[in-house]
Amino acid sequence: MAYAAGIDIGGTTIKLGLFTDTGVLKDKWEIPTRTEENGKYIFSDIADALLSKLNTMDLGLSDLVGVGVDVPGAVLPDGTVNKCVNLGWGVIRAGDMLSEALGGIKTAVCNDANAAALGEAWRGAGNGADSMCMVTLGTGVGGGIILNGKIVEGAFGACGEVGHIPYNDDETESCGCGKKGCVEQYASGSGIARMCRRKLVSDGRDSSLRGYDAPDAKIIFDEAKKGDAVALELVDDFSKVLGKTLAIISAVIDPELFVIGGGVSKNGPIVTEGIQKYFRKYAFHASRDARIELATLGNDAGMYGAVHLVLGE
Amino acid sequence: MAYAAGIDIGGTTIKLGLFTDTGVLKDKWEIPTRTEENGKYIFSDIADALLSKLNTMDLGLSDLVGVGVDVPGAVLPDGTVNKCVNLGWGVIRAGDMLSEALGGIKTAVCNDANAAALGEAWRGAGNGADSMCMVTLGTGVGGGIILNGKIVEGAFGACGEVGHIPYNDDETESCGCGKKGCVEQYASGSGIARMCRRKLVSDGRDSSLRGYDAPDAKIIFDEAKKGDAVALELVDDFSKVLGKTLAIISAVIDPELFVIGGGVSKNGPIVTEGIQKYFRKYAFHASRDARIELATLGNDAGMYGAVHLVLGE
Repeated sequence: MAYAAGIDIGGTTIKLGLFTDTGVLKDKWEIPTRTEENGKYIFSDIADALLSKLNTMDLGLSDLVGVGVDVPGAVLPDGTVNKCVNLGWGVIRAGDMLSEALGGIKTAVCNDANAAALGEAWRGAGNGADSMCMVTLGTGVGGGIILNGKIVEGAFGACGEVGHIPYNDDETESCGCGKKGCVEQYASGSGIARMCRRKLVSDGRDSSLRGYDAPDAKIIFDEAKKGDAVALELVDDFSKVLGKTLAIISAVIDPELFVIGGGVSKNGPIVTEGIQKYFRKYAFHASRDARIELATLGNDAGMYGAVHLVLGE
Repeated sequence: MAYAAGIDIGGTTIKLGLFTDTGVLKDKWEIPTRTEENGKYIFSDIADALLSKLNTMDLGLSDLVGVGVDVPGAVLPDGTVNKCVNLGWGVIRAGDMLSEALGGIKTAVCNDANAAALGEAWRGAGNGADSMCMVTLGTGVGGGIILNGKIVEGAFGACGEVGHIPYNDDETESCGCGKKGCVEQYASGSGIARMCRRKLVSDGRDSSLRGYDAPDAKIIFDEAKKGDAVALELVDDFSKVLGKTLAIISAVIDPELFVIGGGVSKNGPIVTEGIQKYFRKYAFHASRDARIELATLGNDAGMYGAVHLVLGE
C-alpha cells in the first residue's frame, strides 16, 4: 500500500496526517512550529517527524507518493508562498524546500483556508460536492470556494474573502483590513463579542450576559440556548448578517452547498438554523434550496485538503 | 476553410453570425423570431437562413463544423432548455432539434447572458481573459461569470445573478423577482429612472430633468454630462451601488476583469469611471486593481459566445 501526507502548518503547531493513497487517514499527530530564524527549521522538522512516523510503521520514504502542505498565507498559482508573517517566511518556494528535505518527493502547497474548504468538500460535510462555499467563523471570517471539485484561487488570490464583503456603510469602527463595515466585523467570534459589548451599553435590559466580564461567542450562544432575550437577539443579528451574506454569494457563484466551520460553528445547529432562516429570505428564488451544513472535519480539514491536492483527482 | 455559426435567439429577432472555425466573423444578419405554435418554426427558420447564406457563398452544410445558439432562458448542464417564455418553448432539447434540422450537425446551447459574457471574455473587452465577470445593464441587471475561460453555470443555474444580490434592506417597492432591495432596483436602466422619479419628488431643487415627462437612463446621463446637479447625484448614487456590488463580487470570486455591457453602458466612460471610484473604496485591498471596462461587442456578444461554445477550446 502507498501513502501520502497532508500537513497543516499553523503559527503555533504543525498538524501532520498520514493517509493511504486512497485518502484514508491512518495516523495524525502534531509538532510545535519553530518560527525562529525566519522559520527555516520548519522543513527539516516536518521531514524528521514524517520519517520517524514511517519508521515506526516499518515504512520508508519510498512508500510515500507525495506530501501536501497548507500554509497561513497567500500562495501564488505557481506554488510560491507570498509571505507567511506568522511563520517568519518571506517569499519562498516552500514546496521545493520541503521536497528537498524529503529526497525530492512530490509536493503541493496551498493556502490554509482553501485547504480546509477542499478537505470539507472532499471528505467532510461536502462528501464529494462539486460546488461549495466554506465559511470559517473564527477570530475572523475566512472562506474558500470549490467549483468542479477544485479550489478557485482568484486572479489576486482573494477568492472567498467572505469576511471582507462590504456589509454596513454606517460602521464607525475599522476592520482589520482597513475598511469599515466588513462582514467579519459582525459575524466572526470577535465580531459577535463586539456587538455584545455595544448592545449591553445601548440596551438597558437585564441580561444574564451582564454576569460575565467579557462575553465571548460561546457564552453568547450558551445564554441564547438558555433563553436570554438579549443573547437571542445577538444570535439573530449574527444569523441575519451571515444568511444575507450567503444569499449574496449564491447570487454570484450559486454553489450547491455552504459549509460553516471554525470555532463559532462548534455552537452547533443553532448556528446553521439561524443562517438558514435569513438565507431563504434573501436568496434568489432559484438558489433557495442550497444546503447549509456544519463542517465535520474540525481541525483536520486542512490536512485532508492538503493531501487531496497532492493526490490529485 | 471551415465555418461555424453563432446564433443569438431573442424574443423578437434571431441574430445569426457566420464565423470561420478560427473565430473570425465573416457575415451577420437577422431574421424575425416566429413564436407562434410554441416557437416550433424557429429551428427550420434558422436552418433555412443558414443554408441560403451558405448557398450565396458557394458553400454547403458540409463546410459547417457546428452551430452554437444562445436562448433567453435557463439551460441545464445536459443542454436541455428549461423554458423560454419569450419564445413559447417549454422544456425542450433545442440543440437536438436544431441538429435534426441541419442534417445532424454538432450543436451547443447556452443561456444568452452567459453567451454574452463568454463572447466578451473571448473576443471582446476580455480579449482572452481567464477570469471575468460581465454585468449587463439593460431593463434589468444580468450577469455572467467566466473562470478558466469557461462559463460557470451554478448548481441551480443562477450563477452571475448580479441583479438580485440583496442590496438595501429598507426598500419598500418589490423587485421583479419578488424580493425587495435587489441591485437591479437601483442599477438597471429602469432602476435609474425609478430613482430619478423618487428624487424629483423628494428633492425640491430645480433641475433640467424636470423638463422631461419621464427621464430615462440616457437622459439622466446626458444631463449629468451637461452638469445638472441632480442628474450628477443620480449618476453618483448609481455608481455607488454598482461599485459596491463589484467589490462584493471581487470578495467572492476575485476576477481579473469586470466588463460592463447593456444599453446603459452605451453612455460611455462616465459609467465605468463612476463605478471604478466606488469599487476602489469598497474592494478588499488585494483585488483593488481589477479592471473595469466597457463591453466592446454590443449586440454581437451573444453570437460570439455561442460560436465559441461549439468551437470548443
